[in-house]
Amino acid sequence: MFPPSLLQRFGRRVRLGLVGGGLDSVIGQTHLLALRADGLADVTAGAMSVDPETASASAARLLVPQDRTYLDWRDMLDRERNRPDGVDVVVVMTPPHLHAEIAEAFLSAGIHVLCEKPLCATAADARRLADAVAASTALFGLTHCYTGYPMVREARTLVRTGLIGRVRLVEGQLAAGDPGVLREPDAPEDRHWRFRQAIAGKGAVLGEVGSHAHNLAEFVTGRRVTEVYAHLSTVAERREVYDNAYLTVGFEEGAVGRLWSSFVAAGNEHGLELRVFGDDGSLHWRQEDPEYLWLRRPGASATRLSRGTGEPGAAARAATRLRAGHPEGYVMAFATLYRDFLSAVIAAGLGEDPAEHLSLLPSVEDGLSTLLLAEAALASHNAGAVRPLARRG
Amino acid sequence: MFPPSLLQRFGRRVRLGLVGGGLDSVIGQTHLLALRADGLADVTAGAMSVDPETASASAARLLVPQDRTYLDWRDMLDRERNRPDGVDVVVVMTPPHLHAEIAEAFLSAGIHVLCEKPLCATAADARRLADAVAASTALFGLTHCYTGYPMVREARTLVRTGLIGRVRLVEGQLAAGDPGVLREPDAPEDRHWRFRQAIAGKGAVLGEVGSHAHNLAEFVTGRRVTEVYAHLSTVAERREVYDNAYLTVGFEEGAVGRLWSSFVAAGNEHGLELRVFGDDGSLHWRQEDPEYLWLRRPGASATRLSRGTGEPGAAARAATRLRAGHPEGYVMAFATLYRDFLSAVIAAGLGEDPAEHLSLLPSVEDGLSTLLLAEAALASHNAGAVRPLARRG
Amino acid sequence: MFPPSLLQRFGRRVRLGLVGGGLDSVIGQTHLLALRADGLADVTAGAMSVDPETASASAARLLVPQDRTYLDWRDMLDRERNRPDGVDVVVVMTPPHLHAEIAEAFLSAGIHVLCEKPLCATAADARRLADAVAASTALFGLTHCYTGYPMVREARTLVRTGLIGRVRLVEGQLAAGDPGVLREPDAPEDRHWRFRQAIAGKGAVLGEVGSHAHNLAEFVTGRRVTEVYAHLSTVAERREVYDNAYLTVGFEEGAVGRLWSSFVAAGNEHGLELRVFGDDGSLHWRQEDPEYLWLRRPGASATRLSRGTGEPGAAARAATRLRAGHPEGYVMAFATLYRDFLSAVIAAGLGEDPAEHLSLLPSVEDGLSTLLLAEAALASHNAGAVRPLARRG
Amino acid sequence: MFPPSLLQRFGRRVRLGLVGGGLDSVIGQTHLLALRADGLADVTAGAMSVDPETASASAARLLVPQDRTYLDWRDMLDRERNRPDGVDVVVVMTPPHLHAEIAEAFLSAGIHVLCEKPLCATAADARRLADAVAASTALFGLTHCYTGYPMVREARTLVRTGLIGRVRLVEGQLAAGDPGVLREPDAPEDRHWRFRQAIAGKGAVLGEVGSHAHNLAEFVTGRRVTEVYAHLSTVAERREVYDNAYLTVGFEEGAVGRLWSSFVAAGNEHGLELRVFGDDGSLHWRQEDPEYLWLRRPGASATRLSRGTGEPGAAARAATRLRAGHPEGYVMAFATLYRDFLSAVIAAGLGEDPAEHLSLLPSVEDGLSTLLLAEAALASHNAGAVRPLARRG
Repeated sequence: MFPPSLLQRFGRRVRLGLVGGGLDSVIGQTHLLALRADGLADVTAGAMSVDPETASASAARLLVPQDRTYLDWRDMLDRERNRPDGVDVVVVMTPPHLHAEIAEAFLSAGIHVLCEKPLCATAADARRLADAVAASTALFGLTHCYTGYPMVREARTLVRTGLIGRVRLVEGQLAAGDPGVLREPDAPEDRHWRFRQAIAGKGAVLGEVGSHAHNLAEFVTGRRVTEVYAHLSTVAERREVYDNAYLTVGFEEGAVGRLWSSFVAAGNEHGLELRVFGDDGSLHWRQEDPEYLWLRRPGASATRLSRGTGEPGAAARAATRLRAGHPEGYVMAFATLYRDFLSAVIAAGLGEDPAEHLSLLPSVEDGLSTLLLAEAALASHNAGAVRPLARRG
Repeated sequence: MFPPSLLQRFGRRVRLGLVGGGLDSVIGQTHLLALRADGLADVTAGAMSVDPETASASAARLLVPQDRTYLDWRDMLDRERNRPDGVDVVVVMTPPHLHAEIAEAFLSAGIHVLCEKPLCATAADARRLADAVAASTALFGLTHCYTGYPMVREARTLVRTGLIGRVRLVEGQLAAGDPGVLREPDAPEDRHWRFRQAIAGKGAVLGEVGSHAHNLAEFVTGRRVTEVYAHLSTVAERREVYDNAYLTVGFEEGAVGRLWSSFVAAGNEHGLELRVFGDDGSLHWRQEDPEYLWLRRPGASATRLSRGTGEPGAAARAATRLRAGHPEGYVMAFATLYRDFLSAVIAAGLGEDPAEHLSLLPSVEDGLSTLLLAEAALASHNAGAVRPLARRG
Repeated sequence: MFPPSLLQRFGRRVRLGLVGGGLDSVIGQTHLLALRADGLADVTAGAMSVDPETASASAARLLVPQDRTYLDWRDMLDRERNRPDGVDVVVVMTPPHLHAEIAEAFLSAGIHVLCEKPLCATAADARRLADAVAASTALFGLTHCYTGYPMVREARTLVRTGLIGRVRLVEGQLAAGDPGVLREPDAPEDRHWRFRQAIAGKGAVLGEVGSHAHNLAEFVTGRRVTEVYAHLSTVAERREVYDNAYLTVGFEEGAVGRLWSSFVAAGNEHGLELRVFGDDGSLHWRQEDPEYLWLRRPGASATRLSRGTGEPGAAARAATRLRAGHPEGYVMAFATLYRDFLSAVIAAGLGEDPAEHLSLLPSVEDGLSTLLLAEAALASHNAGAVRPLARRG
Repeated sequence: MFPPSLLQRFGRRVRLGLVGGGLDSVIGQTHLLALRADGLADVTAGAMSVDPETASASAARLLVPQDRTYLDWRDMLDRERNRPDGVDVVVVMTPPHLHAEIAEAFLSAGIHVLCEKPLCATAADARRLADAVAASTALFGLTHCYTGYPMVREARTLVRTGLIGRVRLVEGQLAAGDPGVLREPDAPEDRHWRFRQAIAGKGAVLGEVGSHAHNLAEFVTGRRVTEVYAHLSTVAERREVYDNAYLTVGFEEGAVGRLWSSFVAAGNEHGLELRVFGDDGSLHWRQEDPEYLWLRRPGASATRLSRGTGEPGAAARAATRLRAGHPEGYVMAFATLYRDFLSAVIAAGLGEDPAEHLSLLPSVEDGLSTLLLAEAALASHNAGAVRPLARRG
């Protein structure tokens, strides 16, 4: 009646080490909420900040012992790989230009890696990391968190089953505009690394907010972007990088669409949304109202598909934790990515095939795809013309 | 206490002649609802169809006498200009490639012209018509009907007063997708003139649905489009013309934006909306929910400005007919354009300056602006590069 | 192909006389917009105010000749009944305590009457007027304007066809709260007649806003209220009458429900809505968003039925004037009541049966039903117990 | 810079024992998600079901050792109270008629109790339990989970600060209607205990769904219900208890309102909402859209207060975990109740005053208040008249 769960069979929780994500990190706090949700893991080690005080306080709050609190991820790697109770998984939450080096090091030590988006700061780094993942027996996952929403997974299923017919037009956007990103502080040292050209690159907007709209579009439609026309601009005064990107894109199988990424859509709170139009109808999802997926068919009344209701596909059902009418929200979506990845890790630990648990989790190839788009978009903008993405055979 | 109204001082209703807009015309029925709303005019003559039976039945239903029911607008012009009770105004509702010739003929006879959008089928025609309007003492108005909505007029006022700061990003779209436009009928003779290249031109989508998004963006922001990158495509099988247009545009004073016009956004009912982002916030208006204008400011809660409520500007107040909470809808918005134009006609008839009544009514220059954009968009698409609009000095 | 319309066969517009509805009357301006929409009638006479200046100015603005501008409705009755071109219809827009006397007088002269809601100020008056209507050959209609919305008519159809199963629960409300009704002016002479006990009665809230929620509930469900428990209260200081009414009601065939009428729901703009729950689902309509009717079925996604879309019933189709996506709004809904009534008047004038045109138009019996509810609600409130409605066999 | 947290100072996680909430319990799964969110507690013991297999499997999945897995809560009490590492807190998730006995037993052993709603099945039980809580040094909390939403807490703050003026009208409802509750299964043994008169009482609807609307209304307004008129009915065939309750209520300080509780609002997913109208405006919150709180002021545009935005009060700020634009959802709201209670438990363990942590957590008195309302509502229904609540001096 109640077959033993993966965790039960494994007999212990997965041991996590955190790189970055300290008390001064917004995304770090979200990861903590997400990784705890299903009780599959404990944080047992951390190199959570380059600042010693922050690193120490961040680990202490999680009751991580002092001897597993590190100031440098290299120390963590050296020590944890040699402990019998060393970490199974490392979660990488540093700025993206450091992802490749860190992930490659842990992967080569056979430690699984869950990595924040964007995958890397450059396409070159991303290609190298993709090769490292392919060469490693350890698992790799990318936390494009919005793919964990049940109605996003349902949208993917519905597109694949042909509900809206052949995909024709794809509209994705993540146009943010809260005060924290809208303007640059006067003092250069107060500016976020996200907007420093030396760290994030001139096309930062494409990797940061842009990666979500792009990833979502590819995740839901199952089609890669193949070419792009980009109009990039910098609106905020004193900003070193582009902060608004208008992309007109072509997809595999002939669909066309637009991706808009912005830090300067003043007044937007989040702004992630996706609309997919096919021959027979359209799907529309907004991250700020994530329980619903609107289905519109020509000449018919609109249907508001609602999480936990009706006959959702297997992917949405598996990602659903609460009854309809009780909004699940962002943390549960994020937690689903952790559940996917940790289930794969446990399965691997039990000598089972982890593949099914990873089937919906964004991969290193998905992350590379965003960097290829960013690369082509910069080239397009500089040339004032359409550019193809440099995909690998 | 109750000063005499313009109509009262004029002592009679304005006499209208209709060209096109017969019983088989969707827009014709809307014009009738709109022109009657304020009781300022009567339809007294009509050349409402090229089909004799339709022309006759259409006029008879309006109780137009038989001797003022015409089969050809040229007859109507000849006869009405010589009657002492001839029409004051002609409303032109034919397919757009005929607008210029008809409007010029009536204008040259001193008969005022109210013309459907798009102004013409080509920029060349539009330039010629603009010259004709400039040379005539008769008045000219263009029924870009959505500018009649009070909250659209309020948006224009708010942008001008600087409420959202300097305008930076402009997103306009009219992406339709109902069954009537989504696919082409099998038989060529069943296809709408709107999709016949010979009549509407290859870039029909830019003049038809596209004209609304463009006109709305310029109306609200007060800035003309100066350059465009266009990606045009044809989705519907057998269609002769483009039916989807993605435009990335530059505006005067440095704003950038996107205009999306489509006949193939399957499942959309109407789809007209406009978002304007400035340094200090944004405005968002949707034609399907026209009573409200959303104001969002960074870091603050959203405000849903609502028609008839608060402290709207003079333009919105003048366009408001009902108390808040009673949706006015599309017909009242359209009726406001008629009220503006007919008030101008009456003022002119009384020897007064009609200018104030025309200050918000779309003009021949506004119509020309759309055709210049269409012309540049086609050039851009063909070149695969940005193109400037060929504005006149 | 285009069979002659009723108007065409009649050969002239219907002649209307207005009682009340002058320039100082909000509802009067709405009636003018509504009565003009379809071009079926002209205002040819009026006793539009008891104030001579207002009466004169109101008629003059409509181009009503001076000799048909009256200061007293009795004069209008005397003169118009004897003119060969006298009014066909009189529209009664006075305060409700005058409706019965005026309507009875015109009906007895064979002049059709279209009457504002509530039907009367008391159930006794309403009973007498119902008898007068029954005894007259002239037609009578009641402008419960919200019944003209296509999606209200669609809701009625859907309930009748059993879409939501047996009706169980009915929630209706019209809770207003704009500044004009929320508080009483200091000076008694500035207070609206609607809140004067001597004119409107202690239970004014039941006849005014309350009549709409009640009428809508009966119109859509096809079931009369049979009993009521009422909790009445006065929130606004200095107000002479109740301004908030909570009614728990029983309907024919065993449904139960609640009706809430209020002038003191501070911040509401309009507030009319209706929800009907049956065994198999529910329907939800809000006047502030009138293009949509939400259908919810247990365990299924919600459907937003939308005007002009899908397969609406005949009643909704007939009331639809615009394509989907173009909001029709309140004036068109009101105009549909005029079209219904004027079509009946013309049919009668042509010697045809007017019944089909009146099938959806609120009747004197519908108006009486509201007054019976108000009477029983006052009795219930005074007794602190449930009271049946005193319906006539 | 980073002062040590309560947990850090305590040095270990709080040990929880669960009574009920096994694998077959919907609410049990929600408690697990909520209690894990902040990493403040571990489940270390459980008597999670009266069914041995379920009890065993439920605990095993949580990695609870076999020797702390119990079949009877009395065993758990006996054993855990005598272990040095015994549970600090017991969470009671059984059917409500068992709450009083279980809670009293643990409280008398000095073990803190967190109890599911409704507090008890009868007012008599609730009074006794309230006395037991008063007599105990252990802490008691009631998981009326919706009070954990930041915007509910913000509403409470805004009412207290007088933003909407004196509270006049209060509308609360929890009208559910999903297939699981709408109808009774044919076989009596398949019917939920919630609808068995012997277990849940005839007025079950008042304690179950009804408790939420009532609790929310009192929580936000800070006013207790003082009297009630109730109309109770049973819609579902074969159901033993009332499943629809219409309550017209009076509140302290003269406000009036309505509470609607239902299991038969067919098609509703959840249906909890609260509207509070004061002299100067209103607040509106819906559980299905919990990130927003609508503020409407007479004559002004509506403001959609949004979580994490603007200048929220301290209560909302403290309950906020994510930036605006990332929906927090139901689990985070529930987790906030756990965080409040566990923080109080830790503070007490550290010898500090737990009071501040409990200031917003629903108390035994709040739970008693609901049972007093249910008692008075049944009396009112039976008498057909208003009844006061039997509050204790």
